[in-house]
Parts: sequence; C-alpha cells; structure tokens
Amino acid sequence: MAPPAATETNGYAFSGYTDTSTPSIKSDKLSINGVPARRSKAPPFIGGLAAHTCSDMYKSSIAGQPKAKRWDHRITEESQSRQPSSLKAAGKYLSIPGLVSLGGGLPSSQYFPIEHIDVKFPSVPHFSEEETEALGVIKRIGKQDIANDKSIYDLHVALNYGQATGSAQMLRFVTEHTEIIHHPLYQDWGCALTVGSTSALEIAFRMLINRGDYILTEAYTFSSAAETARPLGAIWVGVDVDEEGLLPSSLDLILSEWDPSIHNNKPKPFLLYTVPTGQNPTGATQSRQRREEIYRIAQKHDLFIIEDEPYFFLQMQPYTGADAPDAPPPSSHQEFFDSLVPSLLSLDIDGRVMRMDSFSKIIAPGLRTGWITASEQIVERFVRHSEVCVQNTAGTSQIILFKLLEETWGHAGFIDWLIYMRLEYTKRRDNMLFACEQYLPREVASWVPPMAGMFHWIQIDWTKHPSFGQKSVSDVEDEIFHAAIDKGTLASKGSWFRAEGGAADEIFFRCTFAAAPNEQVRIGIERFGDALRDAFDLPGRISNGLSNGSTH
Amino acid sequence: MAPPAATETNGYAFSGYTDTSTPSIKSDKLSINGVPARRSKAPPFIGGLAAHTCSDMYKSSIAGQPKAKRWDHRITEESQSRQPSSLKAAGKYLSIPGLVSLGGGLPSSQYFPIEHIDVKFPSVPHFSEEETEALGVIKRIGKQDIANDKSIYDLHVALNYGQATGSAQMLRFVTEHTEIIHHPLYQDWGCALTVGSTSALEIAFRMLINRGDYILTEAYTFSSAAETARPLGAIWVGVDVDEEGLLPSSLDLILSEWDPSIHNNKPKPFLLYTVPTGQNPTGATQSRQRREEIYRIAQKHDLFIIEDEPYFFLQMQPYTGADAPDAPPPSSHQEFFDSLVPSLLSLDIDGRVMRMDSFSKIIAPGLRTGWITASEQIVERFVRHSEVCVQNTAGTSQIILFKLLEETWGHAGFIDWLIYMRLEYTKRRDNMLFACEQYLPREVASWVPPMAGMFHWIQIDWTKHPSFGQKSVSDVEDEIFHAAIDKGTLASKGSWFRAEGGAADEIFFRCTFAAAPNEQVRIGIERFGDALRDAFDLPGRISNGLSNGSTH
Repeated sequence: MAPPAATETNGYAFSGYTDTSTPSIKSDKLSINGVPARRSKAPPFIGGLAAHTCSDMYKSSIAGQPKAKRWDHRITEESQSRQPSSLKAAGKYLSIPGLVSLGGGLPSSQYFPIEHIDVKFPSVPHFSEEETEALGVIKRIGKQDIANDKSIYDLHVALNYGQATGSAQMLRFVTEHTEIIHHPLYQDWGCALTVGSTSALEIAFRMLINRGDYILTEAYTFSSAAETARPLGAIWVGVDVDEEGLLPSSLDLILSEWDPSIHNNKPKPFLLYTVPTGQNPTGATQSRQRREEIYRIAQKHDLFIIEDEPYFFLQMQPYTGADAPDAPPPSSHQEFFDSLVPSLLSLDIDGRVMRMDSFSKIIAPGLRTGWITASEQIVERFVRHSEVCVQNTAGTSQIILFKLLEETWGHAGFIDWLIYMRLEYTKRRDNMLFACEQYLPREVASWVPPMAGMFHWIQIDWTKHPSFGQKSVSDVEDEIFHAAIDKGTLASKGSWFRAEGGAADEIFFRCTFAAAPNEQVRIGIERFGDALRDAFDLPGRISNGLSNGSTH
Repeated sequence: MAPPAATETNGYAFSGYTDTSTPSIKSDKLSINGVPARRSKAPPFIGGLAAHTCSDMYKSSIAGQPKAKRWDHRITEESQSRQPSSLKAAGKYLSIPGLVSLGGGLPSSQYFPIEHIDVKFPSVPHFSEEETEALGVIKRIGKQDIANDKSIYDLHVALNYGQATGSAQMLRFVTEHTEIIHHPLYQDWGCALTVGSTSALEIAFRMLINRGDYILTEAYTFSSAAETARPLGAIWVGVDVDEEGLLPSSLDLILSEWDPSIHNNKPKPFLLYTVPTGQNPTGATQSRQRREEIYRIAQKHDLFIIEDEPYFFLQMQPYTGADAPDAPPPSSHQEFFDSLVPSLLSLDIDGRVMRMDSFSKIIAPGLRTGWITASEQIVERFVRHSEVCVQNTAGTSQIILFKLLEETWGHAGFIDWLIYMRLEYTKRRDNMLFACEQYLPREVASWVPPMAGMFHWIQIDWTKHPSFGQKSVSDVEDEIFHAAIDKGTLASKGSWFRAEGGAADEIFFRCTFAAAPNEQVRIGIERFGDALRDAFDLPGRISNGLSNGSTH
C-alpha cells in the first residue's frame, strides 16, 4: 500500500487518500471533509479544567428523526437511584466571570511534576515502525498550552480531575468519528469515553441486570464477558451460531418458547450481548443481512443489545488462498467504508443498541480507553455510574490520543491508519491460514477463514479420536491441549468460552494470529498439527525442521 | 527549604537529605537505605508482557508475625463467587522456554503507533516549576527498552494488556514505599494498584456491602463516597466528630446500643469508612491516640475499616499564626516520618484495615492511579474484581510514574518531594488562615486550623442570623451560599457532606486552599466575609478594594 504522500495544513493532517464521501454525494451525512464546516458552525469549543461536555455539542442536528425508546422499565434499582453529585452540580457557577472557586478540591497544576511530554507518532501514511523511526513526528504536550495558545488541550487540564464523559477534546473526536462511520438514525444518540470495554460492559450489566436474570449471547462467548456477568447473578443463555455467528432463528426460538417454569420463574431475557465482527472466540462476522435479521428479532422481542465491537476495524480483505493474488486494497476512504459490514448501531432506529468501541486493538490496550454510543438516557445513567467508580479515562491516555488522532492524523489520517491495520491483519490472517493448510491434518481439523478480528477457530472432529466413546469430550480436549503444550504450542480450549459453561459435544481450539510474529505462528501451527497427528494416531508428516528452529 | 544538592548514581537518584532510618537504627524495619539490599536478595525481577506479580515478591519476610483475620463471613455473595479466569490461568504455561503462544489475544506491539515518549520531570531537590524548567531531567520511554537493556519497563509492556494487580514495576515501588512508611504488623499484607481511590472504594463496597446494610462514617463525609454507596442500597450512619475527627465514644455508643428493631431489622454495622487525615470536608486529622482508640473500638465490635488516605502526605507544619515565625522544616527523612501521624494500617495487628492511597493529590489526579494495602484475602478478591471491570491502571500512567518515582527520584527523592509538598501546602493553608483572620467576621465565623489536607471548614453561628427562628437552617445556608456567589466566591455547603443526608442544626462551609493561587484565595475569603456581613447585618469593613481587583 503506497497512497500518495500526506499533506499537512495548519496543524491538521489530511490523508493522501481521496475522500469521496463529500457532502455533495451524501448531503445529509457527516463526512470527513464535512467536519471543518460542522465545527465552524458550532459554538466556541470549551475545553478547560473539568469542562462540561456532551456529544450534542459536536454532532450534526438530526432534529427530524425520532427519539430513542426509553428503558426505564429495564434499568435496575441501583442505576435508577443514582443522583447527580451536589459538588459537580455546583460546577455550573464556574462560568460566572471573575468567580473565585474555593469549592472543588482540584489540586493546583503547579504541583504536577511533569513539565512536558513529547511523543513520537507515525506520520500519515508512513505507519510502519521503520518508517516511523525515519519519518515520525514529535508532538510536545506542555502544561500551559491552552493559556499559551499552542493547543486546545494541555497537561494542566489532562493531569487534573476531569468529567466522566471524557474530556471535551476526545469526546468531540469520537463523536465525529462515530457519526462519520455509523450515521446513527435516531435523534438523541451520544457517546461517552470509557476506561475500556471491559469496564463499560460491567457498568452496563449493573445498569440492566438483576440477580437471577437470564442474558443472551453466542453459544461460545468472550470468556471475560461471561466472568463479568456471573458474579452479578446473571445466567447466560447460549444462542446457536454458524459461520456468520449468532443465528437469528435460534434467538427467536429461545425467546418464543421461553418457559419461566423451567427457568427459575424468570421472564424471557431482554438483554443480548454480542460481538458481531470477528467474534471472540469463533472469529465469525455477522453479514449485513444477518445483522438486519438479528435486529428484527430484537425488535420483535423488545431486546436491548450490547454491541461489543473491538474488532470492527480489523475487518480484513477477502481471503483468496495461498496461490491466488491478493484482493486489491481499498482505493479510497469511501471504498473502505463500503467494505465494512454495517454496525448494529447504524441499523438501530429504536435506540436499543449500546455500542462499545475500543482503542485497545486499533491503537493500544494499555491506554485503557474506549467509548460507548447509545441513547441519551443510557449514556446519562452510564456517566452517573462512572462518576463514582472509574471517574474517567486517565488524562495521560486522553491527551496522547488527542495529540495523535486530532493533531497528528486528523480523521482522515486515522482512517488511513485503519486501512493500514486492515492490510496488516490480512497478512497475519493469511499467514496463519497458509500454515493451517500446510500443517494441520484435514482429516480431523476444519475451519472457516475468519473475515475479521484476531482469532482463528479450529474445529477438531473428535469422533475420529481413538478413544472416542471411551473418553469424555473434555478429556480428549484436555489431551490435545496438553499434547500441543508438550510440542511447544499454547492454544486456547474452546470449552473455556462456553457461554453456559460445561462441555459440548464438540471440540474447538482458538488460535490468535495477532500476537506472535508470522514465523512463530507458522511454527506454532506446525507443532499443533504434530500434536493432533499424535493424539489421533495419524500418519506423520515429513518434518521440515521448523518446529525446533534448526532451519530458521 | 534548600537541602544539599542531590547526587545521582547509576541512574538511581539519591536525596540530599540525611536518611537516618538505616537498618542499624531499626534493624527489623525496611528503610529507604535498606531497599537495595532487599532487592539484591530477591529473585530476579520479572517484568515482561503481562507478567504475574504480587507484593510478596517485594516485601520483607515477617514470618514470625501472625496472619490476618479472615473475612469470609463478611464478603458478599458477588465477591465470593468470583472465579479466576481460565484464560489467565493458562498464563502459567508461558514460562515454558520456547513455547509459542497462540492463546492470549494480546495485540502485537508492532502496531502501537507510539515510538517513544519523552517526559521532563523535576530533579531532586529542584522541585518548583521554575527550577524544573532550568534543571529538570528528560527521561525517554522507548518501545523495546527491556530488549535493549535500557530499562526494566517499556512501551511494549506498558501499552499492552497488563495484570489487574498493576505492573510488576509499579507494584514493587508501592509495596516498598508502603513498607517503609507503615511497616505493617501482620504477615500476609499486600498491595494492588487501583485506577484511583474512587474506583477502589466502589470495589470494596461491592465486596463488603449487601443491599440494606448500614455503614459507618464521619457525620460529615466525602460526598462522592456517600454517593458511591447509596445506589448499592447502603445506609450511612454518621458518627459524631470533633476537631480531631471521628469520636470513638460516639462510635462505641452507636454500636453498643444498636437496636435492629428500629433499623429495618439489620444487625449493627461492621464497616467503617474513614478519612483519618485532613478529612474531607472537615479538614480534621485524627491524632495517634485518637486512632488507637478508634482501632480498639473496631476490635471490640469486630469492624472492618476502609482507611481512605489521599491527604496523608499533605500533613502540614504546625500553624504558628500570622505574626510568629514558621516552624522549622524537617531536617531529615526520619524527622519527617516522625512528624506523620501513624496510619491505621500501621496499627493494624488483625488485618482489619484496607488502606487506600492515591497519587492524585501528591502527583496528579489525571494519572488515575492509586493503590490499596490490605490482607492477602482482601487483595485477592479485589484483584479478581478488577480483572473484569477496570482491568488495570492505564499503562501510560504506570510507566510515567515509574520513570519519575523509580528512575528519576527513587524512594529518597520521592520523600523529598513529599516534604516539598508539605511545605507548599503549609504556605497555602497559612495564607487562607491569615485571610480568614483578616476578613471574616469572628462574631459569626469560627474554625480550627487544619493540620492536613486541602480543606478549611468554617462554622457559621446561624443563631445570630436575623431570620433565626423564622427561616430553616437550610434556607439560611442557601442564602449565605448565594450571597457569596453574588460577591464572586464559590464555597461548598456543609450540608452537601452530611453522611445521613438532610440538614443538621448547624451551618458549615468548606473552602479549599489547594486550587486557586494565594492571591485569589485572599480575594475569595474577603468576598465571603463581605457576604457574611451582609447576610448577618454586621457592620461593614473598610474595603481595601481587593475584591474588585482594582488595586491588585
């Protein structure tokens, strides 16, 4: 990928890609090129110490659209009872000119022992580590950049207490980004920053789940999500999946035939947790049609959907196989946007989706920063909750993200980065699939090429195992798991991800292609293949010596 | 304060202060000078990607001491039911040499678009902003500093997922610091990093409070703590306070005479939340004797204590008044340590205290980093909880703190900084007290000089108000509040901090001296005095024009 060189104007970076999504083409939808005009029509940006902020300040007016459905009947007693803080409410007086505040306990920035921070970022479109070393740009973050008219964000603000919505600076960016990508269809949508989707999910569960409630998810689900809900007394109901993930027919059947008498006298579930894109652990991606069907079932049974989308921008190029040429990369932002399966958020006309985005997989997990998008009611309760737990995303992370996304890349450069990530993850995925095709015994191992995410989900036909009928499925899974470790490969057991716990009558292993270098992934898969051959008493493969590193 | 210049040896800064707390003086207690020896006896430091860590790796062995009491009977169903993650448990195989992990979904650091971060810190003992500009040191944080043998911490680790305990690098520092300052008395104590005490408190409440439980605190308490507990269904019981804070006699009386029949049939409370030092909002500091008495009452009634200590190191010099010379600053670390009122943690022989420390007031709130210290059982449940909500403190914050505390200042330099903060806050406190003495009408306003923290607590004798007997106490408080705003000063209403809610038969205002510059604080207090005179129909003061800024 070598798009034309980026140009930088007035501190705001523009991509070398053609952005064809101009207002002239889709006049009612915010495009990247529409952002400066939208900003110029907005009231002056206010981003000082603990400045009040909300998405309404930064999004396009869609006054003609309907408002979101209210969820009062679903919100827990805990969440309903949260009151705005008296101290924070007094913040409204701070806008009085000349007022001396002896009220809030914000320490003086005079005592923050950090004079400045310099960060070196890749410049658009020179994103690789090697190019960054040669061509990267260094951005300085000072303590008084706002007072000195150098920036609209500085350490004096970022290192002090902030709002649970996130800073005005970052909330503006993610609100605009969300509008550009998803174009929400109802009027009163908004965003709030999170300290990561793990935290956002826990808060959402506490807003919506009472002890003993049943909740819906894919039959194999993100184990950390499962472990978040169980101590709250929630009981998971696994919905059947196929290669496109969650099956609408299974979802409908569970809800239509729900019998409280065999479910602790609990009514049918109303909460669906789903990872539509590159699902963890199955790697499945719901197609547009699949999402539309799921949304229709959600309307039919009045479900609230938590859409967990850390891998949304790890949607990859089509898999063409080892011997065919690669699919050509997107030639414009619009082509990239068009290549993305639309989010549930973008289909949501009722305000029944809370979407969770995360910077963890597309920038870095250690920033502990993500954001939610939902209706005003849901965002407001979420922020009330955040105020008395996480408070807000670390200012260190927020200002580094701001310097990168707003002041170095801009919206366009960020999209360029996401295209770069798409192509990089495509290479990694392809490498793993090539290795699987080369090394795994197809007699017992099968898979579907993942279209998104970080995970490859390999099914093992345990009916061919020598001990089939004698050993339990768990024992065979365990045997393969340890055989692989003995060969020198760690793969995750499928059973760890069972939404309802316990064993199924099938065996899967989850292998990630995100972490290890390509050569290591090939070695890992080769060893895994050897372990399978041993476990299933299959004829050996002529070793090329990769697995003990003697030739590489 | 002008201690001798700092020396720097081998990248580890040593303070110019004399550290007399050497092992030869207190041979059984870890001192700053004892840290290098302790480290040299420890197993090799392991701080790689998501490295497992716990305080036991970094603390002195106190094998002869008793173990902490168990709290199984107090831990909630939610907390009891938390299971360690299967995925995280598989991490144990990662120590196998040569293993290829296709297991965990940690993204490759290759795609973290931050090549390096440079941070400019004050060098010891040149802590002021002016000195930092001239003499500060710049520390570089690279992506592969561990591989390149430049540091034991780098962006490749800090920007990826980490452990909920905090990083090994920062957990070691806070464990050592905690041991140096508090010398815990029981065997199985430990620390864990938090994303700030607000979050730590919420987690602790969910570990220990069931809906409907009564919990104890000062009659006036930190409003955010109160707002954290109320939605969980907890009911606050306010314990009477005097100028030394929480009254042991009141605590004992409440518990001894507890009558379930007038308390929704609930047993007497077992949880005490207290801010022993520079309490928010009263500014009161419990003396050593007071703390010993509180601890004895806690033992008598088997209480668990949450010790919230953000202001512990904002203990100030004695107040000598406007006309007397300042008290001399500590001349050594030992003199500084001796000047600090001992923590409840340091008195805790049973393991009934969970202490919350925070970097918010002594480094910067925007880092969202603190730590807890408690018994192994409490820390383990806390970490299990953190794993499925906040996950961990932002790596950006952790590595910046590490570069500052470990690689720039060291333990000794950090103590020097804390002494600097003590002297700075003393000046700020004194400035506010001088202003109060000069501008407030003593006929109706009274106060006790605070010994610690950020807050000055001013009592208003509302029996002298012209409407006393006609208006309610709330109405008079509100009148004064708005009169002050009309004059241009925002002060916090005492009633916002009532643990049990509602109005008392007394009026207080909380004014902070931490935030505004000294001159602004003087103006703010002058205006507040004018507002009081107006509200109470007191004779005016000859204005010096400060309040409208015409002379300054």
